[in-house]
Amino acid sequence: MHRVGVMGATGYTGFELLRLLASHGEIEFGPLTSESYAGKEVGEVFPALAGVVRGRFEKFEPGTFTGVDLVFCCLPHRVAMNSVPGLLDQDLKVVDFSADFRIQDPSVYTAWYKTAHICPERIPQAVYGIPELYRERIRKASLVANPGCYPTGAILGLYPLLKARLIRAGSIIVDSKSGVSGAGRKAELSLQFSEVNERFRAYGIATHRHTPEIEQELSAMAGEAVKVSFTPHLVPMTRGILSTIYAEAGPGATAARARQAYRDAYDGEPFMRLMPEGAFPDVSQVAGSNFLDIGFTLDERTGRFIVVTAIDNLVKGASGAAIQNMNLMLGLPETRGLAHPGFWM
Amino acid sequence: MHRVGVMGATGYTGFELLRLLASHGEIEFGPLTSESYAGKEVGEVFPALAGVVRGRFEKFEPGTFTGVDLVFCCLPHRVAMNSVPGLLDQDLKVVDFSADFRIQDPSVYTAWYKTAHICPERIPQAVYGIPELYRERIRKASLVANPGCYPTGAILGLYPLLKARLIRAGSIIVDSKSGVSGAGRKAELSLQFSEVNERFRAYGIATHRHTPEIEQELSAMAGEAVKVSFTPHLVPMTRGILSTIYAEAGPGATAARARQAYRDAYDGEPFMRLMPEGAFPDVSQVAGSNFLDIGFTLDERTGRFIVVTAIDNLVKGASGAAIQNMNLMLGLPETRGLAHPGFWM
Amino acid sequence: MHRVGVMGATGYTGFELLRLLASHGEIEFGPLTSESYAGKEVGEVFPALAGVVRGRFEKFEPGTFTGVDLVFCCLPHRVAMNSVPGLLDQDLKVVDFSADFRIQDPSVYTAWYKTAHICPERIPQAVYGIPELYRERIRKASLVANPGCYPTGAILGLYPLLKARLIRAGSIIVDSKSGVSGAGRKAELSLQFSEVNERFRAYGIATHRHTPEIEQELSAMAGEAVKVSFTPHLVPMTRGILSTIYAEAGPGATAARARQAYRDAYDGEPFMRLMPEGAFPDVSQVAGSNFLDIGFTLDERTGRFIVVTAIDNLVKGASGAAIQNMNLMLGLPETRGLAHPGFWM
Amino acid sequence: MHRVGVMGATGYTGFELLRLLASHGEIEFGPLTSESYAGKEVGEVFPALAGVVRGRFEKFEPGTFTGVDLVFCCLPHRVAMNSVPGLLDQDLKVVDFSADFRIQDPSVYTAWYKTAHICPERIPQAVYGIPELYRERIRKASLVANPGCYPTGAILGLYPLLKARLIRAGSIIVDSKSGVSGAGRKAELSLQFSEVNERFRAYGIATHRHTPEIEQELSAMAGEAVKVSFTPHLVPMTRGILSTIYAEAGPGATAARARQAYRDAYDGEPFMRLMPEGAFPDVSQVAGSNFLDIGFTLDERTGRFIVVTAIDNLVKGASGAAIQNMNLMLGLPETRGLAHPGFWM
Repeated sequence: MHRVGVMGATGYTGFELLRLLASHGEIEFGPLTSESYAGKEVGEVFPALAGVVRGRFEKFEPGTFTGVDLVFCCLPHRVAMNSVPGLLDQDLKVVDFSADFRIQDPSVYTAWYKTAHICPERIPQAVYGIPELYRERIRKASLVANPGCYPTGAILGLYPLLKARLIRAGSIIVDSKSGVSGAGRKAELSLQFSEVNERFRAYGIATHRHTPEIEQELSAMAGEAVKVSFTPHLVPMTRGILSTIYAEAGPGATAARARQAYRDAYDGEPFMRLMPEGAFPDVSQVAGSNFLDIGFTLDERTGRFIVVTAIDNLVKGASGAAIQNMNLMLGLPETRGLAHPGFWM
Repeated sequence: MHRVGVMGATGYTGFELLRLLASHGEIEFGPLTSESYAGKEVGEVFPALAGVVRGRFEKFEPGTFTGVDLVFCCLPHRVAMNSVPGLLDQDLKVVDFSADFRIQDPSVYTAWYKTAHICPERIPQAVYGIPELYRERIRKASLVANPGCYPTGAILGLYPLLKARLIRAGSIIVDSKSGVSGAGRKAELSLQFSEVNERFRAYGIATHRHTPEIEQELSAMAGEAVKVSFTPHLVPMTRGILSTIYAEAGPGATAARARQAYRDAYDGEPFMRLMPEGAFPDVSQVAGSNFLDIGFTLDERTGRFIVVTAIDNLVKGASGAAIQNMNLMLGLPETRGLAHPGFWM
Repeated sequence: MHRVGVMGATGYTGFELLRLLASHGEIEFGPLTSESYAGKEVGEVFPALAGVVRGRFEKFEPGTFTGVDLVFCCLPHRVAMNSVPGLLDQDLKVVDFSADFRIQDPSVYTAWYKTAHICPERIPQAVYGIPELYRERIRKASLVANPGCYPTGAILGLYPLLKARLIRAGSIIVDSKSGVSGAGRKAELSLQFSEVNERFRAYGIATHRHTPEIEQELSAMAGEAVKVSFTPHLVPMTRGILSTIYAEAGPGATAARARQAYRDAYDGEPFMRLMPEGAFPDVSQVAGSNFLDIGFTLDERTGRFIVVTAIDNLVKGASGAAIQNMNLMLGLPETRGLAHPGFWM
Repeated sequence: MHRVGVMGATGYTGFELLRLLASHGEIEFGPLTSESYAGKEVGEVFPALAGVVRGRFEKFEPGTFTGVDLVFCCLPHRVAMNSVPGLLDQDLKVVDFSADFRIQDPSVYTAWYKTAHICPERIPQAVYGIPELYRERIRKASLVANPGCYPTGAILGLYPLLKARLIRAGSIIVDSKSGVSGAGRKAELSLQFSEVNERFRAYGIATHRHTPEIEQELSAMAGEAVKVSFTPHLVPMTRGILSTIYAEAGPGATAARARQAYRDAYDGEPFMRLMPEGAFPDVSQVAGSNFLDIGFTLDERTGRFIVVTAIDNLVKGASGAAIQNMNLMLGLPETRGLAHPGFWM
């Protein structure tokens, strides 16, 4: 049994970690910290976990995580970079959920997050936590920067087409639609039920902070600086992200070559499911699971590829990916605790 | 044209007042006050009203409402009683949305609202704002205590049966289910979309503050002290209250007599719709409208009446009833501005 | 008073017509036909309308509409073209909700609707029912082809930019998201609550039949053949369409010029609301109303315009537009019956 | 490994069986039959199961299930009784989801299901599948009648109070609220998204077929004929049943005695969770899990117990209970495949 701790365990990603790890089989819980709920039983804060995950949330103090094998750090952006170095200095492995170690270029981080990075010297040791791209590096990493929910669907949806040079890198548009749990667990009027239900809106148009993260990875794939239009939207549902991605077909691109590119990239990947020709994913089919489902078409009329990806933002988009990374970092089978299907049709 | 003001105009009942009054035809807007949004344009706070309701919200000051014909006071319980006396002293007519003037017995108010009433001498002049019961008194009132959303459906559902002595008054159970807008417009974690969506829960079990209001009115009808079990629930939808009401049939009660009792009570009432035998209302059919729909059955197997009522909590349960009361107080036709059907099937 | 009939009155657009016309003030109902509900009272089929719209649905027969001033034909595509000619031959004015008279080129109709047009000779007399584009022709028309819900938001969102030549016509992508009422009122497993709720999916990717309608109008504006990528999605809500539209900025395009172009096109239009800079619409703010709200930005990073439009698919996207057209055709004030705000915040 | 078959596997309970059994660990799938989807791959019908549950649905024929250890029969009421005897005659163990073998008295079955029972002689061998009541009999049963979703929450909510004689058996009212998946997977207009969303209604008032099932079990506990008022409602959510149960306190009843009664009955039960005093369940906390959560209060003002129970109608209310029964029938640990927590907070 490996012992893991969770820092900031009472948000939605924290719940999802506890839910998934409770059935993992090779993990036992070390300290679970929370500022707001310290002292409360897990089952009191999350009644779904009553009788399943025992123990209480506690306040974080230096030394809290001494002796655990790995810490999931679920603190917000800008806060995490204050805590992660201390954990690393104790030789703890860390999977960090924030954006603080995802952006390799500190000036890009500063431009989008409106703050200086306080420990830029730590950034190079962080591995961007998409196993489908960086599996071997993740195995050896002590710090994994767990990717953002939107970037996961965008990057993995485009990777095979960019790698096989089937699209024009400058033409990419990512139109994403997310369930509300992606906004985090907080009291905010704009997230009140009656302010979200029966509504649909775009937000962060041309300014969302996941843009540089997407661009960093696509640029690395394309071998050139790639800029994308990225527009997130809020869907009146709890879980799931669907991304509709548009890109102009490059010279020589055909639907068959594209299908082959997806197969080459993802055959054998345990969590990537390429849908049959003509089929496109619905977020419901991945809800609760670690799968990323992909469908695509090449529209000959307009010369554009349209790629649709679906993930559960709390699983493959956050806590499931984190566990997949943890499995790799701890030398466990990559799919341990993540092999179950989703809970909708 | 009559000129009306709204105090605390930026909650859900405030929006609903503005929405409905915008199409009223004989009303023009006086001052609209708001602590949180003072200085902002109506259309900025409520984009639905952009280009329809012009002007800005302003801070309340003594004298703000000088010269208007009537003020809707949409302040919360315990706060309203600080402001209403001052308005009355300026000879303004007031429709108050809070509970502060609904409960005739100040000791009952104190027991349920956990505070002393600061102006108990004003309570007797308040008329409880259900026109179907107190129409003539409302016409002459300067202060109308607009009823609670739950009490409206419960009281009007039971009135004909109690009046005709067809049920045992001690046996009444009111099981109500409300949309989330009933909880008010506020940033609160338990009202976050992801904390309400795909959920269903009871709350305030045996302790909800609408209980004494229901009991006060039913006791008056029954001519004896009536206690009810009242359980509200939260439904993942924005508008509507459905109340399922159980009461033991009294001696001599039959379905036919009950139907006659409903007809005697409500034929000619413009907003009461008795459904055909065997039909029961759905909240959707009253959404956005001022109708209260009723269906009932006498279950011969168990000897119980089961009555189902549906209202839109923001209309007949709040702002629509308030406008109905205003129409009476200002000598306008009672249905003015309220004659439209609901917006769902 | 003008007398209007509705053919196929028991779908969602039929309900919406009845709901809106009930408060119109200058309209009385003639025959309302329905194959499935013939003989039933309006209030039985649509309990929301009980006590408001009286009468029964009846079967259509030749002569049913004799003597009315105008007929709304709410029959499906391919069915409408069987009935509309007969109505026109009786000198009735017709607003047709189907696609059958929207596409001016019968071969395009055949290509997308997979059927030959049975009366292509009637098509030229039909006016495409967007008053903001064809007001004067609509006033004189005997047949108005009421536009599709998606095209309305796409066409009016792009019109000012195309007219002012601020975008590259070949670069247009329309990513639309619709509430479920747009799919019509029918028993279909894929529309069952549990198959839509907590889901989000694209459909009709690169093949949706509203594509040629959008392209016809944009081509007319651009003065060249325009092809668009159009992707509709299904949102778990009842009403509303939000369209996120991408187009590359043309030479000399600036945000200021674009704003001026929108003002030039829409200032004075009663149902077009341009949002302030930096603000984008939410479908909720137009729900139940005939407004079309627009926000846009020019993303300097990528050189793309991003335009967001919102309508209620049942109102400005169907029955509200139809009433706006009717008002013009009957010589009534264009906004009669449509001036109210939406019913959400 | 045990081999199980599923008859009628493509409804919601069928999906849920496949979803849960996929992670069971000691089960392999035998034939999965379906009339409508015969020949299709599991992953095509249920994309969530793609890559997890392999194989195709097939048509049922006599002999289809030869060699399996147990068959889950998910056919509808009245249909199941045609098929179950044949399975039993092949010495197959059967868990039947229909009502056909739940009601011990065939005349009661006929009265409520409006049909004669075609094999009343088989009924006595069926054990009613609530392990918390009939565990030892289930272990030895060849036919288990899996209980209805509503009865499970009602019966287990009342069992301790009736057993300890703390309530008046004649006073029971069960007011239940269910997610829409309980209505089954079928194309039906009244279940269309736009006919359920933003709605709330009661149905089957005083006539719902789960009534005799509840009464049969409560009568057995009480030792007298018990009649209940049972009112189900439809909540705009997919999963979950919350039952609010009212009963008059009997002589000598106290809250403390009631709490002791619940402890005596359910301490040690793996799937029964009694909530702390003052806490009541929300359906979300059991969604996806096999837990049944209970909260209760004794309202001294009215002398009534109010008990609230929550289950996932597809798990503890159907397929989870069926697997719990299967585990007992096959000699497996009772919690195998069911130990995970729910998927919401």
